[in-house]
Amino acid sequence: MAFPAISKLVVVGVGLIGGSFALALRRAGLVDRVVGMGRSPENMQRALELGIIDEQTSDFAAALSGADFVLLAIPVKQTAGVMQQMAPHLKAHTIISDVGSTKQNVVHAARANLGKRIERFIPAHPIAGTEFNGAEAAFPDLFQDKPVILTPLQENDQQIVDRVADLWQHCGASVSSMLPEQHDQLLAAISHLPHMLAFSLMQHIRTLSHTLSEGDPLALLRFAGSSLNDMTRITASSPEMWRDICLENRAALLAQIEAYQQELSGLQQMLADHDGESLEKLFAEARAIRQAWSAFRNQS
Amino acid sequence: MAFPAISKLVVVGVGLIGGSFALALRRAGLVDRVVGMGRSPENMQRALELGIIDEQTSDFAAALSGADFVLLAIPVKQTAGVMQQMAPHLKAHTIISDVGSTKQNVVHAARANLGKRIERFIPAHPIAGTEFNGAEAAFPDLFQDKPVILTPLQENDQQIVDRVADLWQHCGASVSSMLPEQHDQLLAAISHLPHMLAFSLMQHIRTLSHTLSEGDPLALLRFAGSSLNDMTRITASSPEMWRDICLENRAALLAQIEAYQQELSGLQQMLADHDGESLEKLFAEARAIRQAWSAFRNQS
Repeated sequence: MAFPAISKLVVVGVGLIGGSFALALRRAGLVDRVVGMGRSPENMQRALELGIIDEQTSDFAAALSGADFVLLAIPVKQTAGVMQQMAPHLKAHTIISDVGSTKQNVVHAARANLGKRIERFIPAHPIAGTEFNGAEAAFPDLFQDKPVILTPLQENDQQIVDRVADLWQHCGASVSSMLPEQHDQLLAAISHLPHMLAFSLMQHIRTLSHTLSEGDPLALLRFAGSSLNDMTRITASSPEMWRDICLENRAALLAQIEAYQQELSGLQQMLADHDGESLEKLFAEARAIRQAWSAFRNQS
Repeated sequence: MAFPAISKLVVVGVGLIGGSFALALRRAGLVDRVVGMGRSPENMQRALELGIIDEQTSDFAAALSGADFVLLAIPVKQTAGVMQQMAPHLKAHTIISDVGSTKQNVVHAARANLGKRIERFIPAHPIAGTEFNGAEAAFPDLFQDKPVILTPLQENDQQIVDRVADLWQHCGASVSSMLPEQHDQLLAAISHLPHMLAFSLMQHIRTLSHTLSEGDPLALLRFAGSSLNDMTRITASSPEMWRDICLENRAALLAQIEAYQQELSGLQQMLADHDGESLEKLFAEARAIRQAWSAFRNQS
């Protein structure tokens, strides 16, 4: 079915994600007016100049009056506070969604703060980004062919879930749905765990340098080739951001680290047992998955 | 000091490494005649056609007669057998070196098979390679700006060690020396361990897919971004080769896996303790090393 355009879109946090969402919906002709809210006056001014938003306000009552869609595009930590401020001004027909990279804690914040309005809150996570941020970095193609995961709640109307999915599809995204706990487990496995392994690997080199090279990791790293380079590229990421992600998705990440350690211990046991056959089988299975993944990406 | 050119170089195994060494020394004007030995007649024929070698033989007596330098560029597993065949024909003045990616086992094979000739055996490991192999893949610039690690023995004359270092420098390489056990520990840390972590990560995704996506890893991987992609790129490597490397450097690799697990357990404990401050510090330290490494590579 075709959904009507949004007459008033409120974007709370007009950065890379929020700004790109507004630009993509504008380009698709699916939004009439965009109101921006945000804490940095300079960034809001830039968003106005770039035509990402039509007006800005810091007043939730004014912003939410007549709004048919509110997107929360803010750090997950701020979700509860913003929902608490919004709640008294939310209209019965307003749809609310977010872009948080963890979902159980966002759902928890929503249940604690939105009251009956939770019926029209559809949690979402677009898996897209660049190394830049702010309104300046926004562009309408950011979500093209990128996954967006919705984690609908039992309180949600299917029609509203479909509407949110439709908006993301018009942004070019490929939309899936799952439970919030499945989402958090999945992201812990495919993103958060790999980051922890990379950070630990770099720390391991650092520790080793104390016995091998008088505490100078570069004296070891100068012998390293592309394998260690590839494995540690993501350790250049923001320490503050990863501290927050870790704490926000703590339980799921702990479970993933534990399961990974069992996998690594299995390999260690094969090695302790001189079990070349099992090692080769393990390496071959891993390669087969890697090759299937590469083929999948090349065709899509 | 300037060393004389090699009048007769014997390359046992004319593949990517052995072939590139011959080509680099030829280009430097440091070798008069190259004799190739190898198990594949097609590859030896190709090496002749490409001008990498001047002649080929499968007779060690003929090859080693008058040879002043022998390079063993064969899989490490074959080292002991080839040394045993070579030993009766080695002349007193012939220098022997190798390119094996593990060194303690090569030294062990040499002590068991070379007798008094071990005085002129200088173990070496050029850390260079491409995803291709065979004589066809050889090129004289392979070692340009790449590290070569020598692991000289107490039996070696310093002048012969210097001669081997000089040859590699003329191939464009940056030469270092360390003990065989230091080499094996270093390579376990900067290359073998990262491969084990990547293989285990892919296996972890596979195991997880049994509970999350009916055993289909692609149903999870389709949501993954560049972090998992970077972290698992090396799982496309040859399972047979990695089985052999694991078994050849088993003790050092086991020690590295164990030390890594302690590092990862430390991170896990910080997470279990909600210790955001320690997590942020750990991430920041890892990033600082990564950034120093990137700066080092950009300047060299």
